[in-house]
Amino acid sequence: MTGEHERIARLRAIYGAPATGLGIGDDAAVLAPGIVLSVDAAIEDVHFRRAWIGRGASWRELGARAALAALSDLAAMAAAPRAMLSAITLPRGEPDATLYELAEGIAAIAGELGAPVIGGNLARGTIVTITTTVIGAAGAHVLRRDGARAGDAIWVTGTLGGAALGLAALEAGAIAEPAIARFLRPMPRFGEAAGCAAMAHAAIDVSDGLLADLGHVCGASAVGAELEESAIPREPDHDARARRLGLDPRAAILAGGEDYELVIVAPEGATITGATRIGAITAARGIAVRDPSGAVLALDGLGFDHFG
Amino acid sequence: MTGEHERIARLRAIYGAPATGLGIGDDAAVLAPGIVLSVDAAIEDVHFRRAWIGRGASWRELGARAALAALSDLAAMAAAPRAMLSAITLPRGEPDATLYELAEGIAAIAGELGAPVIGGNLARGTIVTITTTVIGAAGAHVLRRDGARAGDAIWVTGTLGGAALGLAALEAGAIAEPAIARFLRPMPRFGEAAGCAAMAHAAIDVSDGLLADLGHVCGASAVGAELEESAIPREPDHDARARRLGLDPRAAILAGGEDYELVIVAPEGATITGATRIGAITAARGIAVRDPSGAVLALDGLGFDHFG
Repeated sequence: MTGEHERIARLRAIYGAPATGLGIGDDAAVLAPGIVLSVDAAIEDVHFRRAWIGRGASWRELGARAALAALSDLAAMAAAPRAMLSAITLPRGEPDATLYELAEGIAAIAGELGAPVIGGNLARGTIVTITTTVIGAAGAHVLRRDGARAGDAIWVTGTLGGAALGLAALEAGAIAEPAIARFLRPMPRFGEAAGCAAMAHAAIDVSDGLLADLGHVCGASAVGAELEESAIPREPDHDARARRLGLDPRAAILAGGEDYELVIVAPEGATITGATRIGAITAARGIAVRDPSGAVLALDGLGFDHFG
Repeated sequence: MTGEHERIARLRAIYGAPATGLGIGDDAAVLAPGIVLSVDAAIEDVHFRRAWIGRGASWRELGARAALAALSDLAAMAAAPRAMLSAITLPRGEPDATLYELAEGIAAIAGELGAPVIGGNLARGTIVTITTTVIGAAGAHVLRRDGARAGDAIWVTGTLGGAALGLAALEAGAIAEPAIARFLRPMPRFGEAAGCAAMAHAAIDVSDGLLADLGHVCGASAVGAELEESAIPREPDHDARARRLGLDPRAAILAGGEDYELVIVAPEGATITGATRIGAITAARGIAVRDPSGAVLALDGLGFDHFG
């Protein structure tokens, strides 16, 4: 079976390596001089459902979330947000209110994070899609995926697993679950990225899940990783709340995705402000996760392929 | 009924006017310093149909066309192509070959026009969509929509109406019709735009149709226009070919759309290389089209709203 990784590799071969440096395969592309670009799509029935509207979510929140998810790719490269383009499709017959509410949500984030919407596109389709192009200013140090070295420490900002709980709660109509806000309101970690950019070796944002995204870093850097499961920061009472929603608490943490926290790889001994140390980079390939007893977990079936 | 124009005006109000100058409502946005950005979506069953594959078109050609249509927005601002981002959605179960053929078509245009694909996004959806962000370098003179003045001459590059014939031929399965190539292979007018940028007052590319797009220029410039129908350049034998496909020959020229030629407004007396003079800007609002007898045509029902 072809996975997302193979598809991206094949696309990279078709498109060729851009002369400008970073390109397909990193979080965002660098367009000389100092401009970073990325694009991200939020698709009805893939990333969100219409049935959630009025039952835990609103179009405004879904618009904001689409913008935040896209902007997170800039944070992952330690770039500062500068502008957005927003391409929206709506089904024929969709009330205009849907469009305006999506736009209001996007505009709120644009104002909050200093990334005005400077253009866009409207088209009819069969579903609601919000495709956001983000433009950022690269700092002196661009964080890439391919700089991790054996012996480096692995850190993660915030907590993981909350978005998976929020998503499950929305799907179940359990609208009292506070993790819904965690899912709808990810916060790109611009401050944390800027704070560590000079010392960090690599970074990525957690969109596909910790194992998948750390796997991208390890693949690009030709290294492996070892994580301490008990060190991975999570929301209060995570395990019980996950079980109430029918989720495997461990899978929500390791493979849940969409938390948009940053995984940061930095030399051992450095301290990453606003983040928690969860493991180390190894020369041996592959990712091992140790439980509190020191045993290596079996991770089969925890993966997540956005493009599945 | 709310049209695209009102929706864009409302979105502009929601998003606010960007500090960088041009924004929503022009062909592309200017991101200081000298960088122009635009985004355009090609959507299955709106802009193309799966049924055409192998019957006059290929995924490769549809990928190329999506890139060309997006790049045309840069030509309309007299910007030079620099790079693209390509966000693609495919239905679950779609063969990977569709993705690679689309990418090959996009990559061919990227190579031909010097706009490498430096990033992108893949997601599952219910239909095929290709959303292309284009990045261009603005020249010394950026062509905008709002600079037309009463007394200016109106020019158009190439010919109009061919894309409408090609679209109708694809829909009818009339795959011998040569206009199919005209539809599948629009050619952004970078050379013509660069050639006239220093003297022209305004420009737009014909995506929605001559009347609609000239209407955008007139609206933004607070002027009107008068066109000579017989002066509008068309393909050889246009009228008979249009009728064979069941099209109103006049509507194909005036409202057909998707030719991606440039409408250029320049001071009377200037000569626009590679273009034909088709009329003049008037102080009186509205667009009048005169037939060869000098009578003003009734234009009701010729309009085209992409977002209908």
